Amino acid sequence: MPRIHFQQQLAELKDKLLAMAALAQQALDCAVEAYLQQDAGLCQHVRDLEAAINTTERDVYQMAYDLLAKEQPMAVDLRFILAVIKINSDLERVGDQSVNIAQRAEGLMNLPGVKLPVDVKKMGEWAGRMVRTSIQALLDADVKLAESVLTMDDEMDAMNHTAQRALMQEMQARPEVSDQALNAIIIARNLERTADHATNIAEDVIFWVRGSDVRHQMSLAAD
Amino acid sequence: MPRIHFQQQLAELKDKLLAMAALAQQALDCAVEAYLQQDAGLCQHVRDLEAAINTTERDVYQMAYDLLAKEQPMAVDLRFILAVIKINSDLERVGDQSVNIAQRAEGLMNLPGVKLPVDVKKMGEWAGRMVRTSIQALLDADVKLAESVLTMDDEMDAMNHTAQRALMQEMQARPEVSDQALNAIIIARNLERTADHATNIAEDVIFWVRGSDVRHQMSLAAD
Repeated sequence: MPRIHFQQQLAELKDKLLAMAALAQQALDCAVEAYLQQDAGLCQHVRDLEAAINTTERDVYQMAYDLLAKEQPMAVDLRFILAVIKINSDLERVGDQSVNIAQRAEGLMNLPGVKLPVDVKKMGEWAGRMVRTSIQALLDADVKLAESVLTMDDEMDAMNHTAQRALMQEMQARPEVSDQALNAIIIARNLERTADHATNIAEDVIFWVRGSDVRHQMSLAAD
Repeated sequence: MPRIHFQQQLAELKDKLLAMAALAQQALDCAVEAYLQQDAGLCQHVRDLEAAINTTERDVYQMAYDLLAKEQPMAVDLRFILAVIKINSDLERVGDQSVNIAQRAEGLMNLPGVKLPVDVKKMGEWAGRMVRTSIQALLDADVKLAESVLTMDDEMDAMNHTAQRALMQEMQARPEVSDQALNAIIIARNLERTADHATNIAEDVIFWVRGSDVRHQMSLAAD
């Protein structure tokens, strides 16, 4: 099979992964918005997006599999396809986290709205930016950009840690809002997990471009 | 390259992955024991195990990569190698969860021991059994055994949900133990996340054996 055809297939695989990333990011944005606006329709939209994510995940895997089975990619191309397979899994889990957030948002709709010491909007935007940046790093094969995601993750961990502490204290001070505070604690953790997936993606980009493993060389200790 | 040599390399890859699984399971067992026994030495041992896990993860990936690069595996062999790459990542994350638990155990050592409404020992054993069972399913190419892991995960989610509720109530009833209860909440979630990784492994085994994707067909809703 001519090599130009192979390069075209690689480009199609990249496009399909971008569609997957767009779906995952949209699910995340909608889930956070559903929580902030208490919007049941948005919760359902997140579920619809997750169904599309699951279908797209299978498509991406199948395309990657076919490329491995029918071509014999070497070195950088092989590493790219393996990175796509791993990134695909992480994006699917961003979808899972979004559904978890939407479920929590639904659980809150029967409870009175209260002001809580956590900036879910900011954490959601930060997680979204990390996912976007990691995918942009993939598009541009940009190691420096990917490394910036690893730094952003430290900030996310710090935000989550602060939120957990403050929400715990709030629960003790105001037992009547403990259900809402518990939901917020879990949503903050879901966003922190989403950021972890962005970090995994960034690590896979670095490994693909550099051909060496940066994981475990940088501080990535989770809380 | 003769096919018999390729089969031997596949067997070596499987052995290496088994070593990886053994390290991850030991890290998990030690982390839970470190929490239960308040044993600082065991916490350090978990960190040592994690270092070995990270090295072994790179070795497994490199072996899988070399097989893909130098041979041209087809169908079931290709799916097996891709499953190994994904399972390898999940086992590494079992190691991460174990380190998280050990960190929490260390944080507890300065606090008075209290009795809490959570059976960490049982949850830890359950998570460990799920990891073992998923790896056994890989060894035996046993779809039914792998499916049993998916069922076990529902039980794990229920245990975690019950623990979260009870620990929250405990924090409200006894604010003086809230630090210990918060640690227990997070450890219970770490164990539930560990079980999720076992579930991912089981799904990869099923996909490898069946050649079709069972993910998203069964109820795997996280909390």
